[in-house]
Amino acid sequence: MKLVGARLPGEDAVHIARCDGGGDDARIHPITDVDQFWADAQRWTAKAAELTGEGMPAGTVRLVPPVPSSARVICIGLNYKAHAAEGSFQVPDHPTLFGRWTASLSVGGVPAPVPAGEAGLDWEGEVAAYVGAPLCDADPDTARAAVLGYSTFNDLTSRRAQKLTSQWTLGKNGDRSGPLGPLVTADEVGDLRDGLRVRTRVNGETVQDGDTRDMIFELGAVLSLISRTLTLRPGDVIATGTPEGVGYVRNPPWLLGPGDVVEVEVDRLGVLRTPIVGAAGRTESGEA
Amino acid sequence: MKLVGARLPGEDAVHIARCDGGGDDARIHPITDVDQFWADAQRWTAKAAELTGEGMPAGTVRLVPPVPSSARVICIGLNYKAHAAEGSFQVPDHPTLFGRWTASLSVGGVPAPVPAGEAGLDWEGEVAAYVGAPLCDADPDTARAAVLGYSTFNDLTSRRAQKLTSQWTLGKNGDRSGPLGPLVTADEVGDLRDGLRVRTRVNGETVQDGDTRDMIFELGAVLSLISRTLTLRPGDVIATGTPEGVGYVRNPPWLLGPGDVVEVEVDRLGVLRTPIVGAAGRTESGEA
Repeated sequence: MKLVGARLPGEDAVHIARCDGGGDDARIHPITDVDQFWADAQRWTAKAAELTGEGMPAGTVRLVPPVPSSARVICIGLNYKAHAAEGSFQVPDHPTLFGRWTASLSVGGVPAPVPAGEAGLDWEGEVAAYVGAPLCDADPDTARAAVLGYSTFNDLTSRRAQKLTSQWTLGKNGDRSGPLGPLVTADEVGDLRDGLRVRTRVNGETVQDGDTRDMIFELGAVLSLISRTLTLRPGDVIATGTPEGVGYVRNPPWLLGPGDVVEVEVDRLGVLRTPIVGAAGRTESGEA
Repeated sequence: MKLVGARLPGEDAVHIARCDGGGDDARIHPITDVDQFWADAQRWTAKAAELTGEGMPAGTVRLVPPVPSSARVICIGLNYKAHAAEGSFQVPDHPTLFGRWTASLSVGGVPAPVPAGEAGLDWEGEVAAYVGAPLCDADPDTARAAVLGYSTFNDLTSRRAQKLTSQWTLGKNGDRSGPLGPLVTADEVGDLRDGLRVRTRVNGETVQDGDTRDMIFELGAVLSLISRTLTLRPGDVIATGTPEGVGYVRNPPWLLGPGDVVEVEVDRLGVLRTPIVGAAGRTESGEA
C-alpha cells in the first residue's frame, strides 16, 4: 500500500491518504489528519487497507510530505563504504548522524532552488524509513519491526554551506532540498539487508547505482542506537545514507543547476523526480 | 513583556500567553494558539500588550515551549573564544551550526533525564533568540531587527553520544534536554552586543559566568548567514552559544547526575531551573 500526505481542496489540515494507481489515473483515499494518523499508525494503516469507494483524482489534492511537522529527519551521513571513500572519509565506527528539519522537506515534482551562494546542488539518492511506534532503549529487532514503511529520498545538498564548518546541518537544510516519495508500507518492501537497488539519474544519465545490501550500518541497529539517547516517535524519518557517485568529488565537480532534472529510483519504491531552479525559486510555495 | 507557551485546562492546543508577575502570583493571559501567533507574531505581540482582565493563575495551565512544532532550533556550537579553547577547538572562521528538533525542548522545572549510556549530562547555559519574521537572503541589520525576543536556554548535552562521530546531532537531542525560559520581548532586552551576563549554577555553585558581549559571531550576522541557505520562519529559535566553564573538560570531569539541580540565569531574562533525574525519567511526560 502507498501512503501520501495531501491537502484536500478547501482544507488547511494535512491528511494521510492511500494512493492507488499512478500517473494521471492515481486515486486518493483520505484516511485521517496527519497527527491523528501517526498517533496510532499501525491501526490507521490497517483501516486504510479497507477503505472502499472511488476516492478522488490525485490531481485535485496537493501532495505534501506524509509526516507531522514535529518529526525528526535523522540522516546517516556515511553508510556505504565506497561513498565514504570517495569523500576521503574513514569508514566510521558508528553511524554519522545529522539532522534535517521537516521545514526542508518536499515531494516529487516540486522544484528545488539553488541558493545564491552555491555553485549548484549535489544529489544524494537514498531510501528513507518511517518510524511507526515509539522506541526508547529498543533492541535492533524491535526497532526494525517498528518501521511502518519506506520511500525514495533525495538529500539534496548545498556543499559550500555544508563544508563551512565541522557541522553539516546548514548545507543539509536548504529550502525544499529534501524531496520524499510516497510511503510504501513495509510488507511490500521487505528487509533492506536483502537488497534494494538505488539509482540516481541526472537528465537521464545514471550517476549513482548502489544497493541497500551494501550499507555499513543496518537500519535496526541505527534505530536502536538513536533510541538510547532520544525516544523515537511515530512519524520520525531515518534517511539511510547514499551510495557512491555524488557530484562534488568528481573531476571536474558536477553539480545540479537550473534546468536540470534529477531522479532517484529505488526498487519497489518508485521514481522521485525533482527539477532544479535558480535562487529566485526560494521565495515560491513549497508544495506540489 | 513575557510570553509563554501554555496548554489551557481541558484544551489540547498550545496557546501563546502573556505572563505577568512571577512565582506563585504569576497570571496568564492567553493570546491565541501557537501557530496563529507565529503566523503574525508582531501583530499578536502588540495585541497582547493591550489585553486586560485578571487572567488565570499560572498554576492552572501547563507551560510548554512557546514555539510551533515545526520550528527549527539552530544552535551555535563555538561562539565564545574561551569555550572553544577549553574544548581544544580552533576559533572558527564561521559559526558552527548544529540542530535540535523541537521534540527535545522543555521548560523550566521539568526534570531532564540522563540516558542510560551517559555518565551524566553536561550544562551549557545560553541565550536563545526567537525569529519574528521570515528571513531569506537578509542582511545582518534586517535579521537582527526581526528578532521578537529572547529567553534563557540550557543546551544539556549527552557528551558520549555527541562525540561518537564528527556530527554532534545525537548528543544534542536527548529527551527534554533543551529547557527554554519564557520569551522576553526584544524591547526589554536590548542588543546582545551591549552585554548580558550569563551564569550557570549547579546545586548553587557558579560554574559558568560569561557575557554576551564576548560572542565571536554576532546574532544578526549569524541569522543573515543562515538565511542565505534556508528561509528562516517566525518561531525558529537560535541558541547563541555557551561561554566557558562546561563540565566535561574539567579535571576530573563534572557532569550532572540524578538529584542535581542546574540553573541558568541571564540578565533581564530570569532564572531557568532544571532538576536532573535518572534514565527511568525518559518515559515520563515531557511537560511541566
